[in-house]
Amino acid sequence: MQLTLQTDISLRILILMGGQGLDRRYTITELADFFHVSRNHMVKIVNKLGKESYLLNVRGKGGGIYLAKKPKDINIAEVIRTMENNTEIIDCQKHQCIFTGNCKLKGIINQASVLFFEHISQYTLADILIDL
Amino acid sequence: MQLTLQTDISLRILILMGGQGLDRRYTITELADFFHVSRNHMVKIVNKLGKESYLLNVRGKGGGIYLAKKPKDINIAEVIRTMENNTEIIDCQKHQCIFTGNCKLKGIINQASVLFFEHISQYTLADILIDL
Repeated sequence: MQLTLQTDISLRILILMGGQGLDRRYTITELADFFHVSRNHMVKIVNKLGKESYLLNVRGKGGGIYLAKKPKDINIAEVIRTMENNTEIIDCQKHQCIFTGNCKLKGIINQASVLFFEHISQYTLADILIDL
Repeated sequence: MQLTLQTDISLRILILMGGQGLDRRYTITELADFFHVSRNHMVKIVNKLGKESYLLNVRGKGGGIYLAKKPKDINIAEVIRTMENNTEIIDCQKHQCIFTGNCKLKGIINQASVLFFEHISQYTLADILIDL
């Protein structure tokens, strides 16, 4: 029951960028090296963060990758929900579960998941920035 | 952010056994077929459930696999904690995170995780049984 690597690295990118001043521009190679993931993997993560309006990627001289929003406008729960491909903690379709439709477990786990995200949604990127 | 297959199938085994009367005995092959997982995988899951005192496995005539406890004595949150190899939702050691020690994110996610498990710990297997 862990965040995907994509979500984990996304949160780290946002913390890095938010903590280093918003004028700083980054390259894919720099981010890949910094977080010890492959360049290919970093391209996918940055593209998705761009698509979801967390990052901007400006080409050319003076361009680069940077935060598209102020840290106080980036909700941590929203980042997790957006970057996880699936926030269903239990997948009743998997392995053709025969209890589907009748099962009380999913409701209990879904309610627990609501409490999980409600807690995290109290925080924005501004709350978790680090002086780097 | 999903339960591992091991945890998922474990919960399903307990729901099946609790719902079918406690005298019923099962074989590995029967459970593997029922839940559409390999026999090898089912051996591992049943062994772990046995080691954690949720199941008994008696050899010989009249033997088989069955619940070691009454459903009301099996707490769902405990099953999840026991069967997940790692309940840390974010792993700060992974990819050599440089924010470790300084990061506020882990505290927020850990607190959310406490709320998640607190909710589920209100329920036992008896609460989620299905008439099969």
